[in-house]
Amino acid sequence: MKVRNAVEELDPYVPGRSKEEIAQEFGVKKEDIIKLGSNENPWGPSPKVKEAIEAELKNINRYPESDLEELKKEFARYSDVKQEQIIIGGDGADELIDTLAKTFIEEKDEFIVPLPSYMYYEFLFKPYGAIPHYAKWNLKTNTLDLDSVLDAINEKTKILFLCTPNNPTGGLISQDEFRAILNKTNKSKGGVCDAIVVIDEAYFEYSKTNNVNLLEEYDNIFIIRTMSKVMGLAGMRIGYGISTKEIIEYMHRIKPVFSLTKLSYIAALTTIKDSEYIEESIEKGIESRDFLYDEISKMKSVKAYKSYSNFILIDIHNTGFRAAELTREFMKRGMIVRDCSSFKGLDDYYIRISICTLEEDKKFIEVMKEILNE
Amino acid sequence: MKVRNAVEELDPYVPGRSKEEIAQEFGVKKEDIIKLGSNENPWGPSPKVKEAIEAELKNINRYPESDLEELKKEFARYSDVKQEQIIIGGDGADELIDTLAKTFIEEKDEFIVPLPSYMYYEFLFKPYGAIPHYAKWNLKTNTLDLDSVLDAINEKTKILFLCTPNNPTGGLISQDEFRAILNKTNKSKGGVCDAIVVIDEAYFEYSKTNNVNLLEEYDNIFIIRTMSKVMGLAGMRIGYGISTKEIIEYMHRIKPVFSLTKLSYIAALTTIKDSEYIEESIEKGIESRDFLYDEISKMKSVKAYKSYSNFILIDIHNTGFRAAELTREFMKRGMIVRDCSSFKGLDDYYIRISICTLEEDKKFIEVMKEILNE
Repeated sequence: MKVRNAVEELDPYVPGRSKEEIAQEFGVKKEDIIKLGSNENPWGPSPKVKEAIEAELKNINRYPESDLEELKKEFARYSDVKQEQIIIGGDGADELIDTLAKTFIEEKDEFIVPLPSYMYYEFLFKPYGAIPHYAKWNLKTNTLDLDSVLDAINEKTKILFLCTPNNPTGGLISQDEFRAILNKTNKSKGGVCDAIVVIDEAYFEYSKTNNVNLLEEYDNIFIIRTMSKVMGLAGMRIGYGISTKEIIEYMHRIKPVFSLTKLSYIAALTTIKDSEYIEESIEKGIESRDFLYDEISKMKSVKAYKSYSNFILIDIHNTGFRAAELTREFMKRGMIVRDCSSFKGLDDYYIRISICTLEEDKKFIEVMKEILNE
Repeated sequence: MKVRNAVEELDPYVPGRSKEEIAQEFGVKKEDIIKLGSNENPWGPSPKVKEAIEAELKNINRYPESDLEELKKEFARYSDVKQEQIIIGGDGADELIDTLAKTFIEEKDEFIVPLPSYMYYEFLFKPYGAIPHYAKWNLKTNTLDLDSVLDAINEKTKILFLCTPNNPTGGLISQDEFRAILNKTNKSKGGVCDAIVVIDEAYFEYSKTNNVNLLEEYDNIFIIRTMSKVMGLAGMRIGYGISTKEIIEYMHRIKPVFSLTKLSYIAALTTIKDSEYIEESIEKGIESRDFLYDEISKMKSVKAYKSYSNFILIDIHNTGFRAAELTREFMKRGMIVRDCSSFKGLDDYYIRISICTLEEDKKFIEVMKEILNE
């Protein structure tokens, strides 16, 4: 069978490694493994979720609802927008990125990603025949290289992916920078094309900034949010998007109808209403991140990037280890950190760590000092 | 923003209606509603699933595994094929149909569907620019119109969708018919094209037939299975596909990495191992279907189609009701049946009902007699 060329040429996506894999490979106990690889919430889901799911278990033989209106209403309240501006993704935000492609991408359209950034945009867009144009993230200043983005925009540009706080670097994009990009990609503002600027706010709670207000000025924005980070539901695959009513309506035409499981629905609804849990997750997350940053910054052989997110990028050029080697040293000791070699725009000398509980953070710092002889 | 033409032209998919919707619209109690609209398992999930999910709840803040090997192994055992022949869909079988399109469909490729059949194939394939060629299901004999399929095959054919037992008619496709189609779509067998014959076995347990043996003779088959029917997990969105190692490998390159939730994974694994539950679900399902068929066949104004599945198509031309009207009469009385008007190949005078518990079946028959004055 002849597969499409796009499939033949696709680079497989490299996800963070799981506890099961590491336990098997390194003979460590699964329960003892500390996971710093996938930017999850280490404190677990809202305690109210457990109860809500248990009450729904008797109904899982029934298909999910297809409209999800009550959950849309809650996301709208949380985000301070109208319900009609919300779309919900049943494979997390990934499904929404895929739906964006299905809705807007014609073969040979171009999309822009600054490097390094989240690699999954490209994984999802290339199968639609879309062509990536890479802009740059300035690693020295940990800010967007705005000119590189503006230079990459042309009449074929259809989508731009801008992640703030940026994964894996943790830096922010300012609203002035967004405005410059939005103006150049909106013909009614004098731009050279009509393109959608995707603002990936997967981690926005940790930065206490967001860009929802820009939706009042521009009609070419799609904001991505997720319940996999602060909300503690990575295993349930829930994301949501915020945009104009018009864009949301088009995307609903083509989005999978039943992709959010019944238990994911109830978990999401319960969590988004649990503001106490959300507040606490944010505060503990920021505390953990700042602790890790401070401790790593004291080490001589590595450089930690200032992060507004729930992870920290670490430059290990001066350690004598490649990322693959250092990651392996951590795994031997029951710790999963992210080898960043598969991120385009980074070489083989970066790792990324996620926030953990303070106790786990301390263990990690100890182990890191041990491995690096610091 | 300019959306793709394929999106502008798309007919929205019309799913079966939910209890919540009907309760609201008709002022009936949600708990009392009997759902005969969506071909679910009315007896609920395996009792072992509850326990398994409860034990996994503490881990839902973590991303799912990406490889799913243990579950693949169980599906392979259950289907009597090799593990490398299995792919798992995290939005039920729908995700696999979408992945088939992503893997194989180029703009203007053709796919064949006999009408009436499951409408979601078309909903998922059209966005990829694929063009439907409709063949026919013979309603008089409730069998495939084989010639109409063979006639529709040409050098542009890329995929064929053949559902057996067929949704919504309940009839079967024979292996001789499959062989005729497989030969014409496989150049190494003297065919006119190389196309994939998708055999949708979503309901195969109720017919006690399957077509896995054909995989030994042909390399252009993709069998679709689901856990939404016999397995009682419609709300958890789990499907699997069976094909050649080569096709499965290509599809894995492009399939979403994390789409199966952690709780769906554990629910699937627990259920597929629970052969007692599966056996019982099949036997009770067949008993319910045969009871409904016998009772409806006694009525003078309607015709029930003989079904090998967990649903029955009913011809209501002689009742004086259109399907939309009759469906409304049932809803007023707290029963959801499927109005088949949105199925291409059926006119406005068909409904479809799903198996229920015998007690619910009896209530349904009573209500039907009351509405039809029989």
